[in-house]
Amino acid sequence: MAAALLLAASTSSSSSAAFRPPLRLRSPTHPPHPRLIRTGRRPFPVVRAAETDATKDAKPKAPEKAPAADGSSFNQLLGIKGAKQETDIWKIRLQLTKPVTWPPLVWGVLCGAAASGNFHWTVEDVAKSIVCMIMSGPCLTGYTQTINDWYDRDIDAINEPYRPIPSGAISENEVITQIWVLLLAGLGLGALLDVWAGHDFPIVFYLAVGGSLLSYIYSAPPLKLKQNGWIGNFALGASYISLPWWAGQALFGTLTPDIVVLTTLYSIAGLGIAIVNDFKSIEGDRALGLQSLPVAFGMETAKWICVGAIDITQLSVAGYLLSTGKLYYALALLGLTIPQVVFQFQYFLKDPVKYDVKYQASAQPFFVLGLLVTALATSH
Amino acid sequence: MAAALLLAASTSSSSSAAFRPPLRLRSPTHPPHPRLIRTGRRPFPVVRAAETDATKDAKPKAPEKAPAADGSSFNQLLGIKGAKQETDIWKIRLQLTKPVTWPPLVWGVLCGAAASGNFHWTVEDVAKSIVCMIMSGPCLTGYTQTINDWYDRDIDAINEPYRPIPSGAISENEVITQIWVLLLAGLGLGALLDVWAGHDFPIVFYLAVGGSLLSYIYSAPPLKLKQNGWIGNFALGASYISLPWWAGQALFGTLTPDIVVLTTLYSIAGLGIAIVNDFKSIEGDRALGLQSLPVAFGMETAKWICVGAIDITQLSVAGYLLSTGKLYYALALLGLTIPQVVFQFQYFLKDPVKYDVKYQASAQPFFVLGLLVTALATSH
Repeated sequence: MAAALLLAASTSSSSSAAFRPPLRLRSPTHPPHPRLIRTGRRPFPVVRAAETDATKDAKPKAPEKAPAADGSSFNQLLGIKGAKQETDIWKIRLQLTKPVTWPPLVWGVLCGAAASGNFHWTVEDVAKSIVCMIMSGPCLTGYTQTINDWYDRDIDAINEPYRPIPSGAISENEVITQIWVLLLAGLGLGALLDVWAGHDFPIVFYLAVGGSLLSYIYSAPPLKLKQNGWIGNFALGASYISLPWWAGQALFGTLTPDIVVLTTLYSIAGLGIAIVNDFKSIEGDRALGLQSLPVAFGMETAKWICVGAIDITQLSVAGYLLSTGKLYYALALLGLTIPQVVFQFQYFLKDPVKYDVKYQASAQPFFVLGLLVTALATSH
Repeated sequence: MAAALLLAASTSSSSSAAFRPPLRLRSPTHPPHPRLIRTGRRPFPVVRAAETDATKDAKPKAPEKAPAADGSSFNQLLGIKGAKQETDIWKIRLQLTKPVTWPPLVWGVLCGAAASGNFHWTVEDVAKSIVCMIMSGPCLTGYTQTINDWYDRDIDAINEPYRPIPSGAISENEVITQIWVLLLAGLGLGALLDVWAGHDFPIVFYLAVGGSLLSYIYSAPPLKLKQNGWIGNFALGASYISLPWWAGQALFGTLTPDIVVLTTLYSIAGLGIAIVNDFKSIEGDRALGLQSLPVAFGMETAKWICVGAIDITQLSVAGYLLSTGKLYYALALLGLTIPQVVFQFQYFLKDPVKYDVKYQASAQPFFVLGLLVTALATSH
């Protein structure tokens, strides 16, 4: 399955030392800028999993301050660190949309389609899914990432001056045009899907509108969700789990209130995954007064909040599946949770900073498969 | 009808010299601040109508720079100029929501309810309408206005340093809390109305979500609709005409595509009304590089764009009503358009700066009645 392969690629390519996630402020080597009350971009959970501790030892420290002379064109196109300095405007535009963050959305649409119990491997259904994935990934996630980069341009000017916006490789007007095009394309595809699916009410369109609002208030003041550890990480979790699932399910079937509740609860696990990424930026966040959960609660407590959010959610969902008579699905989910707990003890709880990426790269595939198990369970 | 009275009050109290609309930069008496690429708040159309040229001659020039010693408590509560300096936090919170801008929304809900053909003067229907008006006015318009004030705090610090936010009468955290509470209350009331109306699909909730997105991108960069004369004014027109109408109609009946198209076209007239307010700030806007329509096209051309948008829309709607066999409604709408055209020649086209408010105060009531005529016509 292409989506699964892509997702795996984004979560497990830990062998490439050049493959680094889009950053946050890693260490307070620069004095905090007085106007910056917030650290740099907060990349989305699954992506961070791409980093490995190998990157801490291996050669390219350089990309943190300047583009590597031998920067990777592939990294540039994926929108991640270690990118080649690019002058082609279309490659820069693609970089801003951070393609490496799209796979979870693609997977989410797939889960929703599976959960609908009404997806068939026909040309039409596959085509519909692909359009829905394009809406969720390139369009609306791309829109989200571009806004986020726009708001982070001040801090990027300090930490990653070679990024497209602070380096001037793309003008602010061009960025704003890109945001408009991606937003309108996303909303337009949503409306198209509603017509295609013969919906009385344009639910996919409205889900796109809701996601667009969430994206905006995630980065833009005054609400700026990412300023708050709980709200920001939950919004991330929900955007990467619930929203694409809902779109996929509404496209092929009916989005029922119990699915909305179930996936919203599942997004708590997404919150747990998002927290993993806050540990390595704890010093910078503290210096800039950002209340990430590790800053707010201390590393020890935050570690347990993180694994608790993931494990308790998955166990609760397994219990729910069991209570609805879906024994084998519940067991499958439980079976996928066990290796995650093992990796938590082996890596994450030992040293969340050193092993964060190794942990995510090993545990994440089990998590996303669990999501699909739950989707299939709800469809039967 | 309470709504009509309120609306009339907000559009015709031109005799009160102290009654001034929330400002924009009136004249470039201060050197443009380099970081300010946008003028101060852009108040909503009907509100501006409250200003009269009387204010240009009469005594209180003072409120433009400082609160009048004898400032009006009533003006403070309405969120307009000439307000008493207030220390009560709840009065300040109310001031930020600009109650003077709510009546058009209340009227819009009423039009939608009328257009549904399914509103009955029962206790339940009146109660539903009131909740819908609370959602549209105090909650979501209040949320919009508060965000707008938050984004205008820098320019207000220069032009109206006594405003709640720049004066420090309310802290930024308190403002952000207020935005959250109003947004969540608005969305919550939307969901409640859907449950109350027994909707299969939560359309009122999703309209609230859509309006919330529009509000956010109206004020917040990078999209910041109000930076653009066409888009910003059309967004204003649509927010004040289409959105509450849709909510009212969806609450009591079915929101059909033809109504969506009709009211969206009607919002072009709203755009025309919104432009009226750009004439008096033409110098400041030009100084700050803002492309309002009078700045972009010159005063002569913009005058005709303005009246054209209003008149062509209304005549087109009258033609549409006629074509669907609604002769009397079409004649009524035509009859209400004629005095508006007369006032355009008598006041607005003669001197849009001097007579802007006198024009709006005289022409506006005919416009809003025309809106109701159209609503009633579509219901039969």
